[in-house]
Amino acid sequence: MAAIRAKVASRVLITGDRLPSIRRFAGVMGVSPSTVVEAYDRLVAEGVIQARPGSGFYVARAAPPLVLADIGPKRDRAIDPLWVSRQSLDADGAVAKPGCGWLPADWMPNAAIRRALRALARADDAVLSDYGATRGLPALRRLLARQFAGEGLDVGPEQILLTGSGTQAIDLICRFIVRPGDTVLVDDPCYFNFQALLRAHQATILGVPYTQGGPDMERFAEMAATHRPRLYITNSALHNPSGATLTPQVAHRLLNVAASSGMTIVEDDIFGDFEPESSPRLAVLDGLARVIRIGSFSKTLSASIRCGYIAARPDWIDALIDLQVATSFGGVSPATAELVFAVLNDGGYRKHMEAVRRRLVRARRDTAVRLEALGITPWLMPRGGFYLWCALPAGQDATTLARAALCEDVVLAPGNVFSVSQSASGFMRFNVAQMGEARIFDVLERALASGRCREKGGGRLETLSAEDGSIRATM
Amino acid sequence: MAAIRAKVASRVLITGDRLPSIRRFAGVMGVSPSTVVEAYDRLVAEGVIQARPGSGFYVARAAPPLVLADIGPKRDRAIDPLWVSRQSLDADGAVAKPGCGWLPADWMPNAAIRRALRALARADDAVLSDYGATRGLPALRRLLARQFAGEGLDVGPEQILLTGSGTQAIDLICRFIVRPGDTVLVDDPCYFNFQALLRAHQATILGVPYTQGGPDMERFAEMAATHRPRLYITNSALHNPSGATLTPQVAHRLLNVAASSGMTIVEDDIFGDFEPESSPRLAVLDGLARVIRIGSFSKTLSASIRCGYIAARPDWIDALIDLQVATSFGGVSPATAELVFAVLNDGGYRKHMEAVRRRLVRARRDTAVRLEALGITPWLMPRGGFYLWCALPAGQDATTLARAALCEDVVLAPGNVFSVSQSASGFMRFNVAQMGEARIFDVLERALASGRCREKGGGRLETLSAEDGSIRATM
Repeated sequence: MAAIRAKVASRVLITGDRLPSIRRFAGVMGVSPSTVVEAYDRLVAEGVIQARPGSGFYVARAAPPLVLADIGPKRDRAIDPLWVSRQSLDADGAVAKPGCGWLPADWMPNAAIRRALRALARADDAVLSDYGATRGLPALRRLLARQFAGEGLDVGPEQILLTGSGTQAIDLICRFIVRPGDTVLVDDPCYFNFQALLRAHQATILGVPYTQGGPDMERFAEMAATHRPRLYITNSALHNPSGATLTPQVAHRLLNVAASSGMTIVEDDIFGDFEPESSPRLAVLDGLARVIRIGSFSKTLSASIRCGYIAARPDWIDALIDLQVATSFGGVSPATAELVFAVLNDGGYRKHMEAVRRRLVRARRDTAVRLEALGITPWLMPRGGFYLWCALPAGQDATTLARAALCEDVVLAPGNVFSVSQSASGFMRFNVAQMGEARIFDVLERALASGRCREKGGGRLETLSAEDGSIRATM
Repeated sequence: MAAIRAKVASRVLITGDRLPSIRRFAGVMGVSPSTVVEAYDRLVAEGVIQARPGSGFYVARAAPPLVLADIGPKRDRAIDPLWVSRQSLDADGAVAKPGCGWLPADWMPNAAIRRALRALARADDAVLSDYGATRGLPALRRLLARQFAGEGLDVGPEQILLTGSGTQAIDLICRFIVRPGDTVLVDDPCYFNFQALLRAHQATILGVPYTQGGPDMERFAEMAATHRPRLYITNSALHNPSGATLTPQVAHRLLNVAASSGMTIVEDDIFGDFEPESSPRLAVLDGLARVIRIGSFSKTLSASIRCGYIAARPDWIDALIDLQVATSFGGVSPATAELVFAVLNDGGYRKHMEAVRRRLVRARRDTAVRLEALGITPWLMPRGGFYLWCALPAGQDATTLARAALCEDVVLAPGNVFSVSQSASGFMRFNVAQMGEARIFDVLERALASGRCREKGGGRLETLSAEDGSIRATM
């Protein structure tokens, strides 16, 4: 199957070409005819080839199904962005997740959410069962518009589109302006799902080295001139994974380079509410001319009640609305938007976020101290948020460490998951809010001492990889 | 701008080509240089062209942004699928919507939804604020698996993937197997958003004539052989808009044709629960070898609490999970899935659906009688559901009628919205559950008498088109 699929993918065999007969191909490949029959049948089932009765097998079409695991560099599964996401999302309660990207459930504003749910239970029938407006709940868009105005960004609620999540917001923008083969610039390191998302759009991904003040502008300008990227996706405030923040000078220069090369910028502001005081935003400086602001409430409010947003030029919003209607017949569930609005509007929410920020200050400090005791040192001490991007002791490999920790039910986030250039093998991202369990540090210490796997763990890890491998093998 | 964009889209101008100077182009186009400057600036802002200081303007890239309204045949806005969706979704309460595709709010199981919301308000913190499993709530997938088993379709819960909506389910499948230029087969007529969704994937859309027993198999087989479609999307039970149902013979033959041409089939079962007794399903006959079953609860439970699902081959589900993680970091909001499960599991739900089916029998009959009094005759009397696909009196044009009705705040669904071949100008889809207001029939009668627009209405319609036109013009 792989041989045929490769020939099809590489256009050696094109639509309409006749495949070798079963007997001949069995000979060539040195396998039994029944094996070839099975392979051909599967390829027919996948629609890659077609059986023409009495005449043989023919190539049906040039494009095989889009299997993300087959796109981009083949990586050790432990540092494949999708595998790490799936590990974190599907891990059971027994697993500790210092590698995950969210706060523990008991850090979230659950009391306000419960109040909002009880209020929603008393809402009009229409709120409970009708489709919503194409842009999403007006009250929530007005609230966001007021918040933006407070930052000096004047946009009307009609310039805000609610989406199912922050990721869906970026996905919708990629549908709008990224075509297969287009070059997209991300930070190196960057949030690993940016890479997975861009793979789904078959974009060419370029990483620009990230400094403590934002992207390296020398390299950024050079890449803009050489590769003419269509898009640049970044977090300006409390960058994921580094925790760094864009300086005003970099922000200004970045916008000028983008303008001269016709580049669009997606500024993912998902960690903005974790800042102690606000820092420069590309969307504000640019006034949404070429910058698109997106965000969500998954980190601050709830990842279970999901809602994202896009703020952009009115003409772009209009095209995005059509795309969202076509591909999801509207964005966020209206009932979900009602819940988000109710919580944001709840008197307790601002107090809650202040408490979370104070709690994170302590957690960052305490975690840094305990990590440094193991020779793991933060690359910088972030102004806010829950990430510590750390350098491992000399000679330690983050992937080996992550494999060893997984054996003991601890999911870590090794540096190369975040690195397009795969140059972060000596780094690890820690979520300070997820490191309450003392055993996590014991596991880290043991893993550092010997990157090797224990029995049970080894078994577990093999199972995972094997399962996964076999699933892949069938596509 | 249009002239430049057309040259770029048609590859007359390719990446790196120099554009005519502002003065020369102004001369050619017979406009003022300032107009050209403005057009060039906008194209730069869109990233279609680039300004190289001191050297002029150059084509930046081949692909302009994906504006759905610019894809496919230019149509009268009143029969553009996206426009009709936006009208129905954004219409205020004063507007009657016999053209829309959902039940009135007071027909939905709101009491059960309120109970579910109150129960959710008492759930664990984790349920309220954590991300969910990548496949979606296990309890809901097990419930669906049990329902499928009842139909004779044995799939494990791990073969079911929850999505944000039924449309998102189809969109995810298109991402997986449809590439730009691939041919996709739909019914003619079919649910209009299938066309909008396929435009978003830049597929070549072919319509197969739909008979009272399913697609015309002569034409289906012929199209399969000639165009080798990658995919066929259909409703087997209570087809939208016709209300027809697939016969066992057509179902069997259809699967054989699909098998011999390597075609994948998406069976959208969204109206299944409205059937008095179940009819043949492709997914069941085929055992999910090449058929993918999708569905949602928007029609039966709530369009505000949205959730869809995909049931397919395990290897396909695995690839779809990766795609869903990459593009929305998981599917349905976990809290939403909890609500859907609670309502489906609620003792009252089955009784509620029985009552809805009984109520619809009456509504179909009464509406048919009142429409026939106006010379509007159902194409067939459906076994269930809320649609009546009707032939208008000879010489009447559905689009003219829809325009006239819109003047009086009545949104209709003219036949050609559903027709790839634009051959349904003499048909109209009515939602019998949305025709309680007597004035709807008066409006229809007046519209039939004179397809012309009244004063106030005329103004309104112009505004709509103008607004819309101008929005388009800026892209």
